Amino acid sequence: MSKNVIVIGSGAAGMTAASEAKKNDPSAKVIVITEDEHIAYSPCAIPWVIEGKMKWNEIVMHDPPFYSEKRDITVITKTKVTAVDSEKKTVTADKTYPYDSLVVATGGTVFIPPIKGVSLKGTFTVRTVNDAIAISASARKKDKVAIIGAGVIGLEIALALRKLNKDVTVVEMFEQVIPRIADKDMALMIQTYLESEGVKFVFGKGIESVDGTDRVEGITAGGKKIPCEMVIFATGVRANLEVPKMLGLDTGKLNAVVVSPTMQPYKGGVLVEDIFLAGDLVQSTSAVVDGPTMSQLGSSAVKQGIVAGKNAVGGNEKMAPTVTPWISSIGNMEIGGTGLSEGLAAWYGMKVVSATATGLTCARYYPGGKGMTVKLLADESDGRIVGAQIVSGSDVNGRINWLSFVIAEKMKVNEFLYAGENAYCPPTSMVRDTIFDAAEALSKKLSK
Amino acid sequence: MSKNVIVIGSGAAGMTAASEAKKNDPSAKVIVITEDEHIAYSPCAIPWVIEGKMKWNEIVMHDPPFYSEKRDITVITKTKVTAVDSEKKTVTADKTYPYDSLVVATGGTVFIPPIKGVSLKGTFTVRTVNDAIAISASARKKDKVAIIGAGVIGLEIALALRKLNKDVTVVEMFEQVIPRIADKDMALMIQTYLESEGVKFVFGKGIESVDGTDRVEGITAGGKKIPCEMVIFATGVRANLEVPKMLGLDTGKLNAVVVSPTMQPYKGGVLVEDIFLAGDLVQSTSAVVDGPTMSQLGSSAVKQGIVAGKNAVGGNEKMAPTVTPWISSIGNMEIGGTGLSEGLAAWYGMKVVSATATGLTCARYYPGGKGMTVKLLADESDGRIVGAQIVSGSDVNGRINWLSFVIAEKMKVNEFLYAGENAYCPPTSMVRDTIFDAAEALSKKLSK
Repeated sequence: MSKNVIVIGSGAAGMTAASEAKKNDPSAKVIVITEDEHIAYSPCAIPWVIEGKMKWNEIVMHDPPFYSEKRDITVITKTKVTAVDSEKKTVTADKTYPYDSLVVATGGTVFIPPIKGVSLKGTFTVRTVNDAIAISASARKKDKVAIIGAGVIGLEIALALRKLNKDVTVVEMFEQVIPRIADKDMALMIQTYLESEGVKFVFGKGIESVDGTDRVEGITAGGKKIPCEMVIFATGVRANLEVPKMLGLDTGKLNAVVVSPTMQPYKGGVLVEDIFLAGDLVQSTSAVVDGPTMSQLGSSAVKQGIVAGKNAVGGNEKMAPTVTPWISSIGNMEIGGTGLSEGLAAWYGMKVVSATATGLTCARYYPGGKGMTVKLLADESDGRIVGAQIVSGSDVNGRINWLSFVIAEKMKVNEFLYAGENAYCPPTSMVRDTIFDAAEALSKKLSK
Repeated sequence: MSKNVIVIGSGAAGMTAASEAKKNDPSAKVIVITEDEHIAYSPCAIPWVIEGKMKWNEIVMHDPPFYSEKRDITVITKTKVTAVDSEKKTVTADKTYPYDSLVVATGGTVFIPPIKGVSLKGTFTVRTVNDAIAISASARKKDKVAIIGAGVIGLEIALALRKLNKDVTVVEMFEQVIPRIADKDMALMIQTYLESEGVKFVFGKGIESVDGTDRVEGITAGGKKIPCEMVIFATGVRANLEVPKMLGLDTGKLNAVVVSPTMQPYKGGVLVEDIFLAGDLVQSTSAVVDGPTMSQLGSSAVKQGIVAGKNAVGGNEKMAPTVTPWISSIGNMEIGGTGLSEGLAAWYGMKVVSATATGLTCARYYPGGKGMTVKLLADESDGRIVGAQIVSGSDVNGRINWLSFVIAEKMKVNEFLYAGENAYCPPTSMVRDTIFDAAEALSKKLSK
């Protein structure tokens, strides 16, 4: 008999899980139910839609007819799940669907601070294609924009709006851009670049209110009034626990759903066999410290979706602990990181030593090279590499993935100095990668 | 009392060893003796000097006065070592020098086939700055060039000369470009590109003679006469064993000097305490198979030079086994590899399974992405990843270094699918790196 697989949520995690389930059990009947109008798109692409690099429909990889015709997967959009019964194994939305396996991939919800005026016309979040359409439409008519949150999405949108000649102010509670995951010294390079592009920053202040009568006229932050016509909340997401709560699933200390390596949840500490989770609502296991972490990234969602989808049709795949590598492309610059930052290490109570080195993306004498700064962090107690950040004009991505694997393998900096190798050709690299210069400097600091 | 360190050879290995020795023991008296006129340059940069991207003096990082004034290292150029006495611990060149530690870094010699005409005016090798100067001078006056050897340096020079509008024919004994280290399917992409740029190839034929009376008028290959005015031997290098033979050092089955992880040689099987080696004359230990390998790369020379230099002044650093990552930039394309190719695996007697995947350097919808082809090879017996090759328009280097570490860690392809992670941002990456698509395809093949 064919298996009924219901997937709730149509982001990277949900659509990947649906496709994997169908691929691994072609007899399965797979139905995706989503509140969203559009499916299978990358929220990470929204800043470039706002900038005008792509049209909104270009970031939508596939539509429901594609899934129906090409993959035999039914997608029900603009439909809210109102009840889930894990005894009867049913999901209720526009009607009631029975399931053999349920995949919950409802992602995250944008955190909006509980202040006055957040519902005024002219306020926006950054999550869906419709958000991108709304911001773009408004930006055609308005000039002054306040962005709340200097995380990577906030910064990418800030630059996108500067390219449209908007007056952009970014308000950040912390004293730096990309707080928590980037260290202040590395973040400062990005801040300086954005300031040179005309982005204004207000640091160390929370937003206190959105001001206006009918629509946004300004915001108040740190007691200061900042006039603006648009307010964009790029304040990060929290796990969307609506469906997990219906199911009574256990959540962890990071307020997300606890899952096994097979992506199955627990209920009162007991593994739930027929439910699988993937994406921003899940609490992950850190590969760096003994504890939980959040890995709310598109790349993590896809990996988790693969595991959840395969296991939903009888597979036995297992997620590995994560180092959560991230990267952001901001105009001419790239910044990426992996593992712990100084801030995260402090949060976990780990003492770290760090070292930084600078180099180029090609041999010193080769024309057109871009500068590269590499920072490595090691656990002071054992010399293990636990974090890395890189800022450069290009070539950050492969190096971050490389260092992610080094960190996941729990390699000590002294060992990495010789166990690591780099390819070399003058137009593409220095004879010794800057990562090794940073590792050598770090090794010296540790040996003191 | 200060230690006398003599370094023979002034390439990447020798100059790195000299600088490391001095840095780690500032009291040491460090002397470098070299036959070369120029020192501290990258032979890998010669193709771009020929193309005119840089002048020859730009690829020379430092000259002897720099080493004397800034690093207190004496460099004696254009001087041949005629004798070494390991009993008396002396090196004889322009005069006789005593040593406490001797570093031999005399590199490789270009292999010239033993055929008629190889000394005719108009024949060139590709090793030194003076070679680059000579080729450039000749190319200003001549039009037809034959390049012997389709390895990466041969191909890079072929394209450089095409950009100068020369008529270029590359002669290669094997049936593909970049033989041995690249597989035919991957090499074909580079060949096709070079052919589109007007480079002509003759495959499967050895050069039989260089023809001409006073100077080169053509070559004969496979019985066929090819008219040309210049012949460039890009036929690879062999370990230069002149000094090691004076010292009676043991050589291995790859006709290079056997060294310990501390880069010390053996004499009759006994470790020699006061001699250190680095660079192209050394036989390396493979990280992939149980046996020796050659790692005649600039990046390897630097790593070995660091170990040799530190240990020459009392350090105890140890080289790790090597996967020998390489990369070549050929016009708009990059090709890189690491670990075993199909050819090398066959040479070592290992049965491998391979899989290839194609992707892009950025998200599918993001404008300007370049195609990327990733090939992974696994040991059929245990599923361990043992080799990788990538062809793309950019972004190859970091990925090759990443995969080098994965191979060095003896990771199985199934484990890597979950233990590996990639950062994601639409302008810099796909949400799932193409490497994982190749790994998944390989995993499927292995499970059959």
